[in-house]
Amino acid sequence: MLATIAEVDGGGAVMILDQNRLPHETAFVRLNTLSDAAHAIRVMQVRGAPLIGATAAYGVALGLAEGQSLDLILATLAATRPTAVNLHWALARMERVLEKSALAGRQQLAWEEARAIAREDAAANAAIGQHGLPLLQAIAARQGKINVMTHCNAGWLATVAHGTALAPIYAAHNAGLTVHVWVSETRPRNQGLLTAWELAQAGVPHTLIVDNAAGLLLIQSKVDCVIVGADRIAANGDTANKVGTYLKALAARAHGVPFHVAAPVSTIDFACPDGAHIPIEERDPAELGASSAGMGTAIANPAFDVTPAGLIAGIITERGIIPSYQLATVKP
Amino acid sequence: MLATIAEVDGGGAVMILDQNRLPHETAFVRLNTLSDAAHAIRVMQVRGAPLIGATAAYGVALGLAEGQSLDLILATLAATRPTAVNLHWALARMERVLEKSALAGRQQLAWEEARAIAREDAAANAAIGQHGLPLLQAIAARQGKINVMTHCNAGWLATVAHGTALAPIYAAHNAGLTVHVWVSETRPRNQGLLTAWELAQAGVPHTLIVDNAAGLLLIQSKVDCVIVGADRIAANGDTANKVGTYLKALAARAHGVPFHVAAPVSTIDFACPDGAHIPIEERDPAELGASSAGMGTAIANPAFDVTPAGLIAGIITERGIIPSYQLATVKP
Repeated sequence: MLATIAEVDGGGAVMILDQNRLPHETAFVRLNTLSDAAHAIRVMQVRGAPLIGATAAYGVALGLAEGQSLDLILATLAATRPTAVNLHWALARMERVLEKSALAGRQQLAWEEARAIAREDAAANAAIGQHGLPLLQAIAARQGKINVMTHCNAGWLATVAHGTALAPIYAAHNAGLTVHVWVSETRPRNQGLLTAWELAQAGVPHTLIVDNAAGLLLIQSKVDCVIVGADRIAANGDTANKVGTYLKALAARAHGVPFHVAAPVSTIDFACPDGAHIPIEERDPAELGASSAGMGTAIANPAFDVTPAGLIAGIITERGIIPSYQLATVKP
Repeated sequence: MLATIAEVDGGGAVMILDQNRLPHETAFVRLNTLSDAAHAIRVMQVRGAPLIGATAAYGVALGLAEGQSLDLILATLAATRPTAVNLHWALARMERVLEKSALAGRQQLAWEEARAIAREDAAANAAIGQHGLPLLQAIAARQGKINVMTHCNAGWLATVAHGTALAPIYAAHNAGLTVHVWVSETRPRNQGLLTAWELAQAGVPHTLIVDNAAGLLLIQSKVDCVIVGADRIAANGDTANKVGTYLKALAARAHGVPFHVAAPVSTIDFACPDGAHIPIEERDPAELGASSAGMGTAIANPAFDVTPAGLIAGIITERGIIPSYQLATVKP
């Protein structure tokens, strides 16, 4: 069984699955230093909000082992990517634990806390799968086959294990339900291919489409529900996720199809009042691969958009499905 | 000045601009036979509903020059692509004119009628530009700069000249208004690059985005209006256009931004009652270029979707802007 992230050498380094080389190639990268960890997050060798959080936590441990100052470590990792709040959540948790400890004990404590974050992420996602399962069981009870649409990759590749949006799908498949997944390409970085690869490995039937095709499938009644992950959920339930998510939410609403977000509570930013306050990462125009565009063609490449809470039927968390306007009930 | 289609050798053959090689390369293909014309339409060397219509009309003339039967010619061309109604409109017009004529005169008549169809398309599109211009002038009067979003390519490359959706934009630019165009990639075939190339040639400022980014731009109030072309407009105003158009229409509606369709009257299928009756072309999965998808990954590649009339502010035709529910007023 592959894993997205794992300690090696008894805790002196971390091995990650290089997601920039998937699905063509299954290759691993060894992270030895803070700089290795920051680079892996920035260039998206690891991606997905929960996995970014876990990688950042291990990055703190790697930085301390190098003798770097905690302030520098936290600042370096915080600057890697702006939108996924799990990054900041994990760094804040590491800081909280470490600043209470004497300098001598910090190194060991950092490894233990990073390990705990990773372990808890896996457990949270398994619980998300179980809490989301009844949604799919209800569809199966009504009509047999279940057609789920997702966007980007919110599977085990985006987390430490199990995935978020794909966790209920894996749970349904493992429970013997007939589930088929519409996988959208997710331009510009084509994380849909990661989702297709994951689902193929697990034997879950699925069909790849261009992002543009989502509306037609809804017109044709070929989608029973939409489940996506999240990079940051504001306190009012507005949800930032991979750019294009909002278009799917609008289309789902237009056709009366439920749209759910699946994410651990660590993805909820209780300090962020609403979607307008979520920073949207602008990435390198080169990601579009449009070097052939005309001279004088500008390129914009925002990586996320924000789906308003009102379009979200519920947020599937490890504590159950929470209506988007009741997030305060799970505030730690 | 480049042209998408032109007669050569005093009317014995037709030269087309090979749109599969743009924007990398400006290359021409000579159509000598019916089979050449059918191939050019099928593999999308020519594309865009009005240009498909004109190419089909010339294809009839080429077939007659070869001595093919009119029935075979019409059947061959009709089978090339299913969604764009201009193809069938042009073939029906050719048939109507030719079946009245003695066999001896048909060949010359076919060239004349194809020429008339091409000439009329250019004139219709110039008129579309003038009828659409006041929409953009009104925005400019209110706020100065105009941000238009479009989808796919409905510029001069999609027509015999001037374009449909881009015609009002060119008219505004030529009138000295400050207009900027959001150009969406338009996966899987990236016709957005054709639009970027056209706009760059004309000196119209524009920015290329992934299709997924349309919703975010509307959230950020960066779009003042949306104008797209059409492949077939049903009698009730429902409009088939390149897949992904519907998602833009839903997003425009959610943000109170007007969504217009620009098309000549020849794109209206008065025999088609509504969008549910428009055939949607399913194209080769290879267009997604996803050979790297997991084993067991199916691919669906529908080329069009249908935007319901209720989302369309108006249809910009050569006879003026028609409310989508009043198309009967322009029925020939």
